[in-house]
Amino acid sequence: MSSLFVRTLRQDPAEAEVASHKLLVRAGYIRRAAPGIYTWLPLGLKVLAKVEAIVRQEMDAIGAQEVHFPAMLPAEPYQTTGRWQDYGPNMFRLKDRKESDYLLAPTHEEVFTLLVKDLYSSYKDLPVVLYQIQTKYRDEARPRAGLLRGREFIMKDAYSFDMDDAGLSVAYEAQRGAYCRIFERLGLDVVVVSAQSGAMGGSRSEEFLHPTEAGEDTFVRSPGGYAANVEAVTTTPPPARDWASLPAAHVEATPDASTIETVLAQANQLYPRADRPWQASDTLKNVVVAVVQPDETRSLLAVGLPGDREVDLVRLAAALHPAEVEAATEADFAAHPELVRGYLGPQALGLNGPAGAIDYLLDPRVVAGTSWVTGANQAGHHVFDLVAGRDFLAAGQSAGPGEDAPVQAVVEAAEVLAGDPAPDGSGPLELARGVELGHIFQLGRKYAEALDLRVLDPNGKLVTVTMGSYGFGVSRTVAALAQSFHDQRGLMWPAQVAPALVHLVATGKDPAIFAAASNLAGELEALGIEVLYDDRLKVSAGVKFADAELLGLPFILVVGRGLADGLVELRIRATGQVQDLPLGDAVSELSSLVTAALA
Amino acid sequence: MSSLFVRTLRQDPAEAEVASHKLLVRAGYIRRAAPGIYTWLPLGLKVLAKVEAIVRQEMDAIGAQEVHFPAMLPAEPYQTTGRWQDYGPNMFRLKDRKESDYLLAPTHEEVFTLLVKDLYSSYKDLPVVLYQIQTKYRDEARPRAGLLRGREFIMKDAYSFDMDDAGLSVAYEAQRGAYCRIFERLGLDVVVVSAQSGAMGGSRSEEFLHPTEAGEDTFVRSPGGYAANVEAVTTTPPPARDWASLPAAHVEATPDASTIETVLAQANQLYPRADRPWQASDTLKNVVVAVVQPDETRSLLAVGLPGDREVDLVRLAAALHPAEVEAATEADFAAHPELVRGYLGPQALGLNGPAGAIDYLLDPRVVAGTSWVTGANQAGHHVFDLVAGRDFLAAGQSAGPGEDAPVQAVVEAAEVLAGDPAPDGSGPLELARGVELGHIFQLGRKYAEALDLRVLDPNGKLVTVTMGSYGFGVSRTVAALAQSFHDQRGLMWPAQVAPALVHLVATGKDPAIFAAASNLAGELEALGIEVLYDDRLKVSAGVKFADAELLGLPFILVVGRGLADGLVELRIRATGQVQDLPLGDAVSELSSLVTAALA
Repeated sequence: MSSLFVRTLRQDPAEAEVASHKLLVRAGYIRRAAPGIYTWLPLGLKVLAKVEAIVRQEMDAIGAQEVHFPAMLPAEPYQTTGRWQDYGPNMFRLKDRKESDYLLAPTHEEVFTLLVKDLYSSYKDLPVVLYQIQTKYRDEARPRAGLLRGREFIMKDAYSFDMDDAGLSVAYEAQRGAYCRIFERLGLDVVVVSAQSGAMGGSRSEEFLHPTEAGEDTFVRSPGGYAANVEAVTTTPPPARDWASLPAAHVEATPDASTIETVLAQANQLYPRADRPWQASDTLKNVVVAVVQPDETRSLLAVGLPGDREVDLVRLAAALHPAEVEAATEADFAAHPELVRGYLGPQALGLNGPAGAIDYLLDPRVVAGTSWVTGANQAGHHVFDLVAGRDFLAAGQSAGPGEDAPVQAVVEAAEVLAGDPAPDGSGPLELARGVELGHIFQLGRKYAEALDLRVLDPNGKLVTVTMGSYGFGVSRTVAALAQSFHDQRGLMWPAQVAPALVHLVATGKDPAIFAAASNLAGELEALGIEVLYDDRLKVSAGVKFADAELLGLPFILVVGRGLADGLVELRIRATGQVQDLPLGDAVSELSSLVTAALA
Repeated sequence: MSSLFVRTLRQDPAEAEVASHKLLVRAGYIRRAAPGIYTWLPLGLKVLAKVEAIVRQEMDAIGAQEVHFPAMLPAEPYQTTGRWQDYGPNMFRLKDRKESDYLLAPTHEEVFTLLVKDLYSSYKDLPVVLYQIQTKYRDEARPRAGLLRGREFIMKDAYSFDMDDAGLSVAYEAQRGAYCRIFERLGLDVVVVSAQSGAMGGSRSEEFLHPTEAGEDTFVRSPGGYAANVEAVTTTPPPARDWASLPAAHVEATPDASTIETVLAQANQLYPRADRPWQASDTLKNVVVAVVQPDETRSLLAVGLPGDREVDLVRLAAALHPAEVEAATEADFAAHPELVRGYLGPQALGLNGPAGAIDYLLDPRVVAGTSWVTGANQAGHHVFDLVAGRDFLAAGQSAGPGEDAPVQAVVEAAEVLAGDPAPDGSGPLELARGVELGHIFQLGRKYAEALDLRVLDPNGKLVTVTMGSYGFGVSRTVAALAQSFHDQRGLMWPAQVAPALVHLVATGKDPAIFAAASNLAGELEALGIEVLYDDRLKVSAGVKFADAELLGLPFILVVGRGLADGLVELRIRATGQVQDLPLGDAVSELSSLVTAALA
């Protein structure tokens, strides 16, 4: 400790909100270099190396072969697949001295595909699984929470190449199994959830989420075992209903009722229902947002959904990927005077509206035969008994009889609420937050087709290869470990990833104490047990204990006043358990504890 | 081999010129991703990891502590030290989504300085030495020779922080010693030469050059032990001479004599010397080049030097750093009609010339009292007996009596020739080529001053810290190893860095052979000896042998027809030695060979 490059801080860093971020900085594991960009200090680098080693071992164990690509890549393959554009402002781009375009890769599908195309040509060469552990770049709009959402970060990314879907399934399951083993070895709780494929394309996809309030992902689970990222949850629409008996739509004055609450108040006062009060789920809310395409063209979009739910912008953005969603501005509305704010109804939108009406997407619940109170496209007025399928196009309804007729598009953009039914019928959903530590994809042939990766099959016919991609957030996992294993006094690393196993503290000023401690350090290290020895002479015992608890090594061995009686003190950081030991037993006792902890 | 991600190539890659580049690509160790940017394939990555491990061990052994900085850094600290500008087009720059400036770091002095400033504040904290092994970026004008000069490459960079010069010397010597041990362990021949500090600033600096014709650096050595990069060689000027007895300068017609050869021919024919013929060293040649500053301002510069030497553009560029040197163009001369091409003399240049004359630098040999034949600044005419110090300012001569008077600047830009005297009097120089694998600098206080890294000394006074920086080209060392250890058939890795120790080849089709080979592989691996097993069934013995020699593992064990007689064949790749062994002795024999090779 007297020479280790570390300074513990008593104050939380100003910008830190979550515990892992505060503690990793305070304990001197990492240090901020720029927004979302961190330096690894000696202790942090040791934890990172141990996580990397576990990931590497489990990848090697399933036959994945390690390679290492550049982080800076030429733009061309990404232009071919369209991701150069699709990533929009999330990708770092640069030019070299010859004005050629390069990117700092957020993920490497294109160049892995080209490498296999470059070297392999036959079914005999497949399957193959390649991986790398590498620095990745993503120009996040809002980097936050230290290593949890950075702009330069470390990932393991693996890619599988197979002749057919069955092979891809095998590769996918092997990665899935390796991920489960990695998290088990790390002692880190994860939930595997169905996911949207997002920027990757492809079909089946799952995320490994570590449940924590500090996470940015919301996921759902049901008692029957359904689990999905909230972006991937699908709504089960109610059955279509007959509207023969429903009254005709009628416009009514609803002065000053531009919110769901005021509409309900007016409706219940002026136009009460006989059976029950009007409620929010009787209303059809139309929310206008701005959609920004990767090429930065901006347009307005209305989303129609039951008035008892908000639009979930994360779900909407996932549905519109690669476009991004922003709040509509005053300028946007000013450019569309036909939009009557607060009184917007489906009859003025999308296919229902006049030529030039803004796009309109409907929640899947708005099936044919559902009846709504909604805006009348006239200030101070709403329309009642407006029936989907009769008075405006219902979700998924065709605008005409022909096969080519446009269809009212449906969108999964409404918030998912606790208690909603799981799409597979396995019961009501509960919601939780988590941080995404892994994401695995069955990409299929998207990249192989775009980049023409084909090999000869046994009949001499060229076949397009099918691919999977498998991402693992290595630096983010360090943060998740800190988030999962800490208390109010500091970090509490599991032995598998601790920067050292034993924090050896010598207290007081007696040279005999320091001599005994130094001997113990030597004996432990001779057994291959990593020791961090606090040999500082002019630092109080209190500061040393506080540092030991902040740094969070699993075992704290204290050599102090008890030495006069031949005793040392052993503290277990995770449990707080304290025990006096004869000096002569300390090494063997620690050795068995360490062996057990690493088993 | 049947599943390893490798394809050996029989043809050299089109762009490859040097052996290491050809062989590393042909043997499937690396693959080009973009100019100067390479992908590490599985075998290459294993070599790289072994080199990294040796570097890491030797750094740890001298107490350097490993950290890891981002590769992408904010511009600000580099703007503070001026290197944002000084690096010119050699640095990759980019902007993030908020239009903030970033760079991909070629070297990390600034941020290491700021990190120590951030965490340390007292003499008690020092000395400290930090290092990282990391991907670096440099936008080379001419990336070449594969890993020998890349644009994305891997370096170890270390930085020392001390209170005083004595401490810096200790840190410098420790790094120097570690480098020597690393190269010794790698079995790589290096010459330690004095060097210019270049972009780093600072005082003492040495390079570790691996002598090879493929290298881009020229260095010199003397029989007495002097060794220097050619950029760092200083000329010993002759003593100044008395000019009292010398004749006055006189202009003579020398028609069509715009080169040294034609001037000499004309002079010897029209104005012969009494004592001996005119020779090139009697002439003063004035060479005009264009100098481009980091901010891209361009100006002309004349360099005056004895006519028997050329300007060495590498030496000139080193002297003018951070400016770069280019050939002067027709447009440059057109903009300066006062320059009489082919007949340029010192009397029209720099301080000797009229106001607005282009800059002029003189070779150190042009001391006061030397007499020259040189251009008369008039087409078809030269001036004879033009005496430095009398007729124009000699090297280092002041233009006037005052202390503030400008001085004729001197430049080390003339080529160094074999046989030139070593500056330390240790004998005639010989010239050789090498590749720079390491470069260590005593930076002094340049960065600490620019970034205000000061700590309290024992008297409570703030003292500026003194620094060293120590670079080691890790990926370039892999190329140097390939360059140093190969023959016409392929690579020949030293055991310390070989991707595996034993290349086990099974030949023929007899299942008993493959079964025996598979057993041997298992037994060797059980002893911790890495084996690459060529288990391919439908590949001829000839192809397998050629691949084994190309891949270059130290020991090749062949299981083939001899197995019927209980024999296997052992080939030593480096020596070509072949030996039959009883099957039962193979494992123990290889085990002792491997132990000896790794010792």
